[in-house]
Amino acid sequence: MEIKRNGSQLSSKGPAEWFTGTVRVDPLFNAPAPARVGGALVTFEPGARTAWHTHPLGQTLIVTVGSGLVQRNCGPIEEIRPGDVIWFAPTRSIGMAPRLQPQ
Amino acid sequence: MEIKRNGSQLSSKGPAEWFTGTVRVDPLFNAPAPARVGGALVTFEPGARTAWHTHPLGQTLIVTVGSGLVQRNCGPIEEIRPGDVIWFAPTRSIGMAPRLQPQ
Repeated sequence: MEIKRNGSQLSSKGPAEWFTGTVRVDPLFNAPAPARVGGALVTFEPGARTAWHTHPLGQTLIVTVGSGLVQRNCGPIEEIRPGDVIWFAPTRSIGMAPRLQPQ
Repeated sequence: MEIKRNGSQLSSKGPAEWFTGTVRVDPLFNAPAPARVGGALVTFEPGARTAWHTHPLGQTLIVTVGSGLVQRNCGPIEEIRPGDVIWFAPTRSIGMAPRLQPQ
């Protein structure tokens, strides 16, 4: 049993090659093999967004605070709000951004 | 891109063979193969606890609210609080419970 206490993992700034604007990444976990999953708390300031990118094993978003916009490839832009859970299937290009105006 | 909206997934009561006391399980996600990960929001009322159990691929807890107690096999009982992240490696017996007295 390994406990990572609140505050024991350093926050980092989302790197410019992955994000536009101010993004904070707070690591949560990276399960060792044979698990292949990791998770982080990612906080977007208004106007921040990801670059278009892919996830070879897919990605799940769980919205905890605020509201934002997500899109996959050329699909519709969808608004997301706290409690929404978003699944991106593997390998297709996705992007996300918070709403510019808080609701 | 699949969006499960807040409120669209039914809560369930934690089954008696897995839990003692009142536990609510709110499903979040179950990623399809080749992913092998799933997540849920599990809420323990005071005094509730899990039965001893195992996780073949391990389990990560992310404490969001309250405080509780966790133990693995005959190891120490550890108190956990919001923001703590707990990793249980695969297959060993674990249990967890909230603290009886809110802090």
